[in-house]
Amino acid sequence: MTEGTHRVLVMNSGSSSMKYQLIDVVDGTAVAGGLIERIGQAVGHASHRFAGNETSFDGPIPDHATAVRIMQQLFVDSGRPLQTGAMTAVGHRVVHGGSLFGDPVLIDDEVLRQIRDLSALAPLHNPANATGIEQAMAAFPGVPQVAVFDTAFFRTLPAAAYTYAIDRETAAAQQIRRYGFHGTSHQYVSGRVATVLGRPLEDFNQIVLHLGNGASASAIRGGVAVETSMGLTPLEGLVMGTRSGDLDPGAILHLLRTGGLDVDGLDALLNRRSGLLGLSGVSDFRDLADLVAAGDADATVALDVYCHRIRKYIGAYLAVLGGVDVITFTAGVGENAADVRARIMTGLEGLGISVDPARNAVRSSEPRIISPDGAPVTVMVIPTDEELAIARAAAELVSLVAGTAVSAHP
Amino acid sequence: MTEGTHRVLVMNSGSSSMKYQLIDVVDGTAVAGGLIERIGQAVGHASHRFAGNETSFDGPIPDHATAVRIMQQLFVDSGRPLQTGAMTAVGHRVVHGGSLFGDPVLIDDEVLRQIRDLSALAPLHNPANATGIEQAMAAFPGVPQVAVFDTAFFRTLPAAAYTYAIDRETAAAQQIRRYGFHGTSHQYVSGRVATVLGRPLEDFNQIVLHLGNGASASAIRGGVAVETSMGLTPLEGLVMGTRSGDLDPGAILHLLRTGGLDVDGLDALLNRRSGLLGLSGVSDFRDLADLVAAGDADATVALDVYCHRIRKYIGAYLAVLGGVDVITFTAGVGENAADVRARIMTGLEGLGISVDPARNAVRSSEPRIISPDGAPVTVMVIPTDEELAIARAAAELVSLVAGTAVSAHP
Ligand SMILES: Nc1ncnc2c1ncn2[C@@H]1O[C@H](COP(=O)(O)OP(=O)(O)O)[C@@H](O)[C@H]1O
Ligand SMILES: Nc1ncnc2c1ncn2[C@@H]1O[C@H](COP(=O)(O)OP(=O)(O)O)[C@@H](O)[C@H]1O
Repeated sequence: MTEGTHRVLVMNSGSSSMKYQLIDVVDGTAVAGGLIERIGQAVGHASHRFAGNETSFDGPIPDHATAVRIMQQLFVDSGRPLQTGAMTAVGHRVVHGGSLFGDPVLIDDEVLRQIRDLSALAPLHNPANATGIEQAMAAFPGVPQVAVFDTAFFRTLPAAAYTYAIDRETAAAQQIRRYGFHGTSHQYVSGRVATVLGRPLEDFNQIVLHLGNGASASAIRGGVAVETSMGLTPLEGLVMGTRSGDLDPGAILHLLRTGGLDVDGLDALLNRRSGLLGLSGVSDFRDLADLVAAGDADATVALDVYCHRIRKYIGAYLAVLGGVDVITFTAGVGENAADVRARIMTGLEGLGISVDPARNAVRSSEPRIISPDGAPVTVMVIPTDEELAIARAAAELVSLVAGTAVSAHP
Repeated sequence: MTEGTHRVLVMNSGSSSMKYQLIDVVDGTAVAGGLIERIGQAVGHASHRFAGNETSFDGPIPDHATAVRIMQQLFVDSGRPLQTGAMTAVGHRVVHGGSLFGDPVLIDDEVLRQIRDLSALAPLHNPANATGIEQAMAAFPGVPQVAVFDTAFFRTLPAAAYTYAIDRETAAAQQIRRYGFHGTSHQYVSGRVATVLGRPLEDFNQIVLHLGNGASASAIRGGVAVETSMGLTPLEGLVMGTRSGDLDPGAILHLLRTGGLDVDGLDALLNRRSGLLGLSGVSDFRDLADLVAAGDADATVALDVYCHRIRKYIGAYLAVLGGVDVITFTAGVGENAADVRARIMTGLEGLGISVDPARNAVRSSEPRIISPDGAPVTVMVIPTDEELAIARAAAELVSLVAGTAVSAHP
């Protein structure tokens, strides 16, 4: 078995950026990785990490085809070219799988077309994902390309959870239902919980709180997702860096009527100028924490609203599940902001939910329990790793297809 | 004390209808009452109840001034004219008090103007409320007119609950925050809970589920409202007869972009063609129950979505309160649909919430406990009476102002 047979290039293509990692699926590490930004702008930027060294590029990156060539060049510059044999597959993060896609799929022209067709549901994401796939197919002929969908884990939601209470014909015609996002993270983290606790996934109920720039919550019964906070789009649910999360539909009618906003203005308001940014002026949680520490009143309200919303979802999912065994924090805020974790859990002691102050304060990148011994609900912190999950899913699919025996889950 | 000093005429004026009751605030009964419908249409209809008799009128009712005259005539026809001395006050249900109004107020021209000015926040309701008030002021000169606001009980919501996570300048400019509605009902019912249980209101936490054509939930800590499901408008929250309740804001952007809908079409869709009607084809709960009993698949999904949403709010408010002592069902569905109450509570046993099947099945118009003896959470059914609450609030204000001693709360 050559080195390349257990390496997967994971690509996450946005409209003006491209993130990538070359991942060793056996030991679970990122061999190399990088970020290409400002694609299509006058001056683009790319940075690449390999073996502790960082190389970079500044200059015009007119399109995704150029971005892929620059990525290849940065691999060459670092002394580790991305030849075809260097990897067993390319795994692509695809935001919206609609009702069509669940499990990871090998991408051919038909699948690529279907991913593009789902753009009506994810106008910002799917076209960029498809373009990235197209360029990777051209750049790495013969390497299997695998799509891993952000919506896939939530395909198991029951009708009571995925159905919005709107006119059924309109919903059917416009494909309006709850799909959920961040699925790869929720699935990865809930699986890790079972492994770390040494309990069969089937035996217990979980709530996962993915708190990053985007943020979402999920309710998982015996490993199966039964509810999640994001909906038709990634705008619903928790308060995020720049997104509003839940909002009275009537407030949107009101904004359209009296706020002088059209649909694009509304989209920009709710997706890019709301959330923590809209309430406090900053979208990054570290900046928010600094403002709160300095006594800023708006930032304090923003933090209160943020935590209140999360508490409501914890309670809602407690009711949906009829009881919860494990609640897990993950992603940038969830993994790092101990004070926020403590604040969220304050007042939930009566429901069996609490964190141990000393355990919660430990800074670590390891999975860990932060609730007191013997607490009715186990509270954990588990670092998420969507790229690793995508790499493993891609490797597993490829080995299944090929009938070979790459161990994707060591 | 003449009979009139403890009677209040309660008026609820809609855009094309007017409901009224003459209420005895001492014994809490409706002496007379009626409904005037299809105001402004070719043929209007009015019906009036008094002492067990019903009289009616069919014919053109071009405007609210005519409606008030017809109401007066129906009182005359029934042998009990509505002279000035027949009542101590007129109490008006006003939907939106905005940030301006909390407690009931005596209406003068300035207050009337302010109620009209709040129409931007409640374009369907406040203009009609104001027109009704204006006509009542003209018809009953010298009788104090009192406005009781549907939003008042929720003025105590903390910022964490009333703040939407959108751009703060936009929110301030457009007065966008959670106001809450059905406040008179939530306040009345939560007060009755304390009376019926013989416990001081201050001592315990409640969740009230008002399930009628409109539907809302509230979390009440020691008698003080701390959360509620309706928001800037009565569209947010639970699934209702024709209203969607909660919906991904992104779904609205999607509908605007691909559904061929403008703001009025969207308003009609979400307020009048969604909810139970949108999912099942019927908006009335009895019709829905019939369809479910006949095995209709869409109706069954509608009922599942309806109950699931309520369960999520119960859980959310459990977390907001940190624990709940009493959960109360009220309004048409909540008071009457025993099977729905049972269905909602199914699966919540692990949270200490359940109904006793025999107690739940009893049909009664009395306040009652339906949870088993010794259950951690007391579940109740309490008939709401918004008209009585408005009448008492009006009488109390008038007697306070006059310095007289009408006992509004026997
Ligand atoms: N030490 C920290 N304390 C508080 N917040 C942190 C810390 N480290 C990262 N964050 C926050 O995590 C968020 C980004 O999370 P991440 O999971 O990387 O986001 P994304 O959704 O883009 O993947 C930012 O708001 C950042 O401020
Ligand atoms: N016996 C019953 N069983 C089930 N639902 C009922 C029953 N009686 C009334 N309802 C329902 O209650 C709803 C109306 O509730 P109500 O409180 O009168 O509404 P509103 O919000 O207009 O005040 C309707 O959906 C009606 O079908």
